[in-house]
Amino acid sequence: MVKKLALLYEGKAKKVYTTDDANVLWVEYKDSATAFNGEKKATIAGKGRLNNEITSVLFSKLCEAGIPNHFIQKLSATEQLVKKVTIIPLEVVVRNVVAGSLAKRLGIPEGTRLEKPLIEFYYKNDDLGDPLLLEDHIAILKLATSEQIAVLKELALKVNDVLTKHFADCRVRLIDFKLEFGVDAEGAILLADEISPDTCRLWDMETNEKLDKDVFRRDLGSLTDAYETILQRLGGESACTK
Amino acid sequence: MVKKLALLYEGKAKKVYTTDDANVLWVEYKDSATAFNGEKKATIAGKGRLNNEITSVLFSKLCEAGIPNHFIQKLSATEQLVKKVTIIPLEVVVRNVVAGSLAKRLGIPEGTRLEKPLIEFYYKNDDLGDPLLLEDHIAILKLATSEQIAVLKELALKVNDVLTKHFADCRVRLIDFKLEFGVDAEGAILLADEISPDTCRLWDMETNEKLDKDVFRRDLGSLTDAYETILQRLGGESACTK
Ligand SMILES: Nc1ncnc2c1ncn2[C@@H]1O[C@H](COP(=O)(O)OP(=O)(O)O)[C@@H](O)[C@H]1O
Ligand SMILES: Nc1ncnc2c1ncn2[C@@H]1O[C@H](COP(=O)(O)OP(=O)(O)O)[C@@H](O)[C@H]1O
Ligand SMILES: [Mg+2]
Ligand SMILES: [Mg+2]
Repeated sequence: MVKKLALLYEGKAKKVYTTDDANVLWVEYKDSATAFNGEKKATIAGKGRLNNEITSVLFSKLCEAGIPNHFIQKLSATEQLVKKVTIIPLEVVVRNVVAGSLAKRLGIPEGTRLEKPLIEFYYKNDDLGDPLLLEDHIAILKLATSEQIAVLKELALKVNDVLTKHFADCRVRLIDFKLEFGVDAEGAILLADEISPDTCRLWDMETNEKLDKDVFRRDLGSLTDAYETILQRLGGESACTK
Repeated sequence: MVKKLALLYEGKAKKVYTTDDANVLWVEYKDSATAFNGEKKATIAGKGRLNNEITSVLFSKLCEAGIPNHFIQKLSATEQLVKKVTIIPLEVVVRNVVAGSLAKRLGIPEGTRLEKPLIEFYYKNDDLGDPLLLEDHIAILKLATSEQIAVLKELALKVNDVLTKHFADCRVRLIDFKLEFGVDAEGAILLADEISPDTCRLWDMETNEKLDKDVFRRDLGSLTDAYETILQRLGGESACTK
């Protein structure tokens, strides 16, 4: 069993620790919720557990589907082990239905179905407000090569296929989500970070009830009730033996 | 000679009139300056003349270079005739050097030279604040087909080549500029609207002095002095016989 060592960094949602294995990090999910680039903040008891459980289930699913990713195992209700990667500072957003900033940008009503999944890249940079980037911007900033961008897109679409089907089986519509990828010691691109109601828009299939962070962003009720609903519907075990 | 008829629309910089020829519009350049999506406004005597003269000279140059465009002829100090097109609601921005919103978006210092020209599309939509668009966004909004986008890019790069050289001959650096294109009665894509210090960033080759609308945006001195410098340096006649 690996040993937890020093705090490597603390983000808005997680604390990341080094371990006695240089290739392994120890992640602790926090009970904090933030939105609008940190302008809105709250402590919500139980959120860390819910996100750790949900992300573990989803990464196990993606692992089964053969998508290269950082997940090793869940350690406790709020902790997990992951492979250490160098995060590519891009938020890779996949959208199936218009919502949030896309509705605002294009002036299209939230809920409009897209003909095919849309992939967008945002610069993971809080100081700049996570701006939308063209692929040419990514090249100028040297954030990723065009070969890496192609891999990110291909993996993002695969993740979308797997998750869309899995959520549909749980009577949940996957509206959109944000992924982060990283490069491991061998130069391979791995899906990293988390996939949770913090990073996805999830609507009830029948009622379109929001079961994600928009509950917090827009004050629509209890965040933990919504996230608990997602965890219940996902059910299942979080492990990847591949 | 065509006859001016009714006001078709009035924009921030120009009044556009119909004529007794259904394919011809009569454009009058106004003495108004606006910036920041209309938040900053002023009336500046002489600006209409300067932009009408400058845009006429530049379109004549582009016409000589074989770039399909709307310019017919200058009528008076502030008026010109153009071919009527249906404007594609995209602002096609070409950049050679980082400035303005790109510097802010990427966190790169203004003045950084780009390795190759960058083309960006913005949605010409004041209500939405002219947002940056991906090509996939353009497809979702059905603003242009992918074939049309390819033509816009090719023409934009040609315009950049011609104008960069021409301005360099006048000791001016073409930093970036915005183009608008339209579709004529036959379905051909024509370069339209204006090319002036309102729509270009132009820096003196030796001193980097700004000779464009940034003088107004950033209160750097006399706008008409700057625009007059550009007109003087461009010299030449505005006519296209091709
Ligand atoms: N496998 C990994 N290796 C290294 N860093 C990771 C890994 N997975 C996630 N991270 C990073 O951990 C940090 C903490 O996560 P989080 O609290 O969500 O941060 P943020 O405030 O940037 O959203 C983020 O910078 C994230 O990119
Ligand atoms: N050849 C053309 N045919 C039709 N419309 C044109 C042509 N050239 C320019 N326009 C349009 O004329 C309008 C008036 O110009 P302007 O005052 O610059 O407007 P804006 O406030 O939209 O910038 C703009 O909508 C522009 O797109
Ligand atoms: Mg995060
Ligand atoms: Mg205009």
